[in-house]
Amino acid sequence: MNIPDSIQERVKKELNSFCKSLPKEPQELYEPMRYMLGLGGKNLRPSLLLLTCKMLGGKINDAIPAAIAIELFHNFTLIHDDVTDNSPLRRGKPTVYKKWNLNVALLSGDALMIKSYQELNKTPAKYLPAAFKIFNDAALKVCEGQQLDMNYETKNKVTIEDYLSMISMKTAALFSASMQMGAILAGVSKLDCKKMEIVGENLGMLFQLKDDMLDVFGESAQTGKQIGGDIIQDKKTFLLLKALESAKGKTKAELIVLIGNTEISTEEKVKRVKKIYEDLGVEEVANKQMEMYHTNAKKALSSIKTPEKEILLALTGALLERKK
Amino acid sequence: MNIPDSIQERVKKELNSFCKSLPKEPQELYEPMRYMLGLGGKNLRPSLLLLTCKMLGGKINDAIPAAIAIELFHNFTLIHDDVTDNSPLRRGKPTVYKKWNLNVALLSGDALMIKSYQELNKTPAKYLPAAFKIFNDAALKVCEGQQLDMNYETKNKVTIEDYLSMISMKTAALFSASMQMGAILAGVSKLDCKKMEIVGENLGMLFQLKDDMLDVFGESAQTGKQIGGDIIQDKKTFLLLKALESAKGKTKAELIVLIGNTEISTEEKVKRVKKIYEDLGVEEVANKQMEMYHTNAKKALSSIKTPEKEILLALTGALLERKK
Repeated sequence: MNIPDSIQERVKKELNSFCKSLPKEPQELYEPMRYMLGLGGKNLRPSLLLLTCKMLGGKINDAIPAAIAIELFHNFTLIHDDVTDNSPLRRGKPTVYKKWNLNVALLSGDALMIKSYQELNKTPAKYLPAAFKIFNDAALKVCEGQQLDMNYETKNKVTIEDYLSMISMKTAALFSASMQMGAILAGVSKLDCKKMEIVGENLGMLFQLKDDMLDVFGESAQTGKQIGGDIIQDKKTFLLLKALESAKGKTKAELIVLIGNTEISTEEKVKRVKKIYEDLGVEEVANKQMEMYHTNAKKALSSIKTPEKEILLALTGALLERKK
Repeated sequence: MNIPDSIQERVKKELNSFCKSLPKEPQELYEPMRYMLGLGGKNLRPSLLLLTCKMLGGKINDAIPAAIAIELFHNFTLIHDDVTDNSPLRRGKPTVYKKWNLNVALLSGDALMIKSYQELNKTPAKYLPAAFKIFNDAALKVCEGQQLDMNYETKNKVTIEDYLSMISMKTAALFSASMQMGAILAGVSKLDCKKMEIVGENLGMLFQLKDDMLDVFGESAQTGKQIGGDIIQDKKTFLLLKALESAKGKTKAELIVLIGNTEISTEEKVKRVKKIYEDLGVEEVANKQMEMYHTNAKKALSSIKTPEKEILLALTGALLERKK
């Protein structure tokens, strides 16, 4: 996804070293960490962190601990989210919760969070207090976002603003923190750190909306996920909320009947909701929203002076165009 | 428990301020934190941290963030442990898991761990890298100890050494880290930090063995717990393992029959196991073991030069004599 190979490979190498450095025992703590990290995510957050640091003239080595820390923290959230969401599969494989059990998921998740802080601790001392603060603030936002996400499942009236605010915490906070930490670790001015925070925030929002889109309009072979998963689970995504907002009369009535409907087959449900989305043009609305985040990110980047900016701009575009 | 009022009150005041500073929403995250911290623990770990720092000539204010962090972390472990142990009550009140539900306990626990790191982050920058490292290493040991504790529930052959090694991680690690951080924050030599680490380790072991003793030989009115709780749950404590080790013939056969026995009443079970403990003299063995930890702690303290050492020595003795 337009991330330079050198960055991607460095992240993979460091994550591999991390896995190898883990003790064997108690295996209930450490085996799930290796398993989770072995499922092969995109490593987008650590890559963005390193890329930002490099682009702004920093030393990659200074940024490695924070990059690994953020990926470990992200994986910790996945282990615990799979418990709260009762998810059987993650990247096509059994979740830690299902492969082992609740107690293993709980405790190995906790230990992975602590491991993420252990990595962060290796950050050069002069950058540590600032990086630690950004990390903590984002980490807490992720928890708040996850709680809101859970609350919205049963809450009757969820607005688009509620949803955007929730994903800005649950997803965008870590993107934003990654780029902000990358800037801090490059030793740039507060103003430039702030700009990178904004770039990260907008990339995170774009990333999540694109995820919502791919769930409905993507190709299963590319995403590796069941198409329409959000529809089947009645998840209040940007698309559903927008559809509920703009639908009228019979269409609105049909959509409301479809939500929570367990009488028709899941295939039928996905097909009919997707048709409503298409009739209402919510895909275009979402595209416009994503384009707005894209523009915001480019704007915040525009006054950053570095010849390597093009790499980040290309990546921003790639997030918009991604198929998986 | 021989902790100077000024220290105890400062800890309480800071924990109160912390609770007041918590946001209201999402209440599923923050209400359990306030609830848990409001159950009224002994605040032993933060008190030891502050006392150590003060005794060694440090500034209390420098040590407050780490002290609060360690108490928050301890409370996070209690919230999650109550899930893994399926405990209905904590300090006579419903556990977070029972009062709310699994998801709330999981996520508010996670958030409380992050809050503990947020507090730690307020440590003066010059001490932060070292304090952060001690904190992380101890935090991970606590998780490892909890995992071993869970494993020992179903493991057939648990030795006294296994048990002591487990409690050195699950309990003593945080005591040790508290006193070591107190020393670090007082800016004393590495040697003195190491000595305080040893004092803390021994106090932690003593504290846990005393807990095992109070469970059987304490007074419910003073401990606030059901007497014999460990016996009812067949917990492999120091006392049970020592009894299994030293019992012979009919006594050993009776003890083995009693473990896991659900046919007799819990009162009867507690009474009979307690009688075996008394006949075998395991109380004295445990007392000797505790006396050894007490001696170790005093020895490590002996070469520390400070007029205020007496306070810590008195506290060490009080941990041995405590009734609750």
